[in-house]
Amino acid sequence: MSGILYGIGIGPGDPDLLTLKASRLLAELPVLAWPAPEEGPGLARTIAAAHIPEGRVEIPIRLSFRPGRDDTDAAYGAAAASIAAHLDQGRDVGVLCEGDPLFFGSFIHLLSRLDSRHPVTVVPGVASPMAAAAAAGRPLASLDESLAIIPATRPEETIATLLDAADSAVIMKIGRHLPKIRRVLDRLGRSGDALLAERIGQPGQRIGPLDRADPDHTPYFSLILVGRRSPAR
Amino acid sequence: MSGILYGIGIGPGDPDLLTLKASRLLAELPVLAWPAPEEGPGLARTIAAAHIPEGRVEIPIRLSFRPGRDDTDAAYGAAAASIAAHLDQGRDVGVLCEGDPLFFGSFIHLLSRLDSRHPVTVVPGVASPMAAAAAAGRPLASLDESLAIIPATRPEETIATLLDAADSAVIMKIGRHLPKIRRVLDRLGRSGDALLAERIGQPGQRIGPLDRADPDHTPYFSLILVGRRSPAR
Repeated sequence: MSGILYGIGIGPGDPDLLTLKASRLLAELPVLAWPAPEEGPGLARTIAAAHIPEGRVEIPIRLSFRPGRDDTDAAYGAAAASIAAHLDQGRDVGVLCEGDPLFFGSFIHLLSRLDSRHPVTVVPGVASPMAAAAAAGRPLASLDESLAIIPATRPEETIATLLDAADSAVIMKIGRHLPKIRRVLDRLGRSGDALLAERIGQPGQRIGPLDRADPDHTPYFSLILVGRRSPAR
Repeated sequence: MSGILYGIGIGPGDPDLLTLKASRLLAELPVLAWPAPEEGPGLARTIAAAHIPEGRVEIPIRLSFRPGRDDTDAAYGAAAASIAAHLDQGRDVGVLCEGDPLFFGSFIHLLSRLDSRHPVTVVPGVASPMAAAAAAGRPLASLDESLAIIPATRPEETIATLLDAADSAVIMKIGRHLPKIRRVLDRLGRSGDALLAERIGQPGQRIGPLDRADPDHTPYFSLILVGRRSPAR
């Protein structure tokens, strides 16, 4: 009998934003895997630290992002093999996921490699747009408003089309794309009330107007909240 | 000194999906308000029930949805006045919010009435699209994919434009709009892998292919997960 693979959303950074279900699973599961940089525990393991008892089997999924190299496919493949070995022996395995597992989560890469042979349970978590909106005290969407979620990695024209189609938007994964995003928001007259949110729920959290952002120090895990096209619709 | 107004996301239905922060606040705050139908406790109070100690001051916000009448503005106005009276006397007040407070939450109507005169803290929660994706075991968005969140109340052409602009979509608040949504998804060739999710995390949860949905019994709190335009991008 295979063990169960759990994708566990642990929220955007504040350990208090784990769900009751996530905290209980972390206390109970015999094997835990977590994405991490080449060294150290990484963000997910750090967020969840207080809920992980000593002596658990832990599987770090080491992801390197060196310029010109992308070893992530090999890293997920190796992690999936390690996880499958535990599942095959009947041990349940939890994978820690920043935010929500199925909303731009690295868990998706493990799910596609494992869900044909193993039972999977996904525990949803608080996603970063909701946490950023909470920190800013500003609604994401209300009543009949539409909302676009747009990765900043997309081409400028694709981003402009999405911004035009929806009432409000969240642009994710800003990092080095900040100048491009500023340009398209300026062009569409949508910069005015845009807010840049960095490191939400983590030490160093910052939220402020887009025009005060520093393009040389904008982390990858930052996002921009773009307000409604017109305040009076 | 004013008390603090807390908007507390309690997730989409499963009491286990409350965050640690939400459960602690519910145990501590002296006054709790919650949206409800004309009679009974309503969904939010029911989800949170196990975390609310006896003897709390509770403020039901009674919302009626009779055909041809909309008394919600008056109901929120009256609730805001009751809440403000407690805040003015220095008592903190928590407002229970299904899902996330700022993602189509009724809390937005209280926030706009109270945030100019009282300090506000919003505790984000697990939103229904993430919970539906988890229950379906299917990603909402990954890597550089865009996602549109679309209320089913919008006109057919607006919905079509949003579906065309984004890679995948979540259509919210389906209810009586099911025939319209089916029509537009059929026209765009996007019905094939669309899933209807009803009462996620609640008794009677159902997820299934859109073509098996019953238009006469689709609740307002249901949503449709629309997959990527093309499986191989």
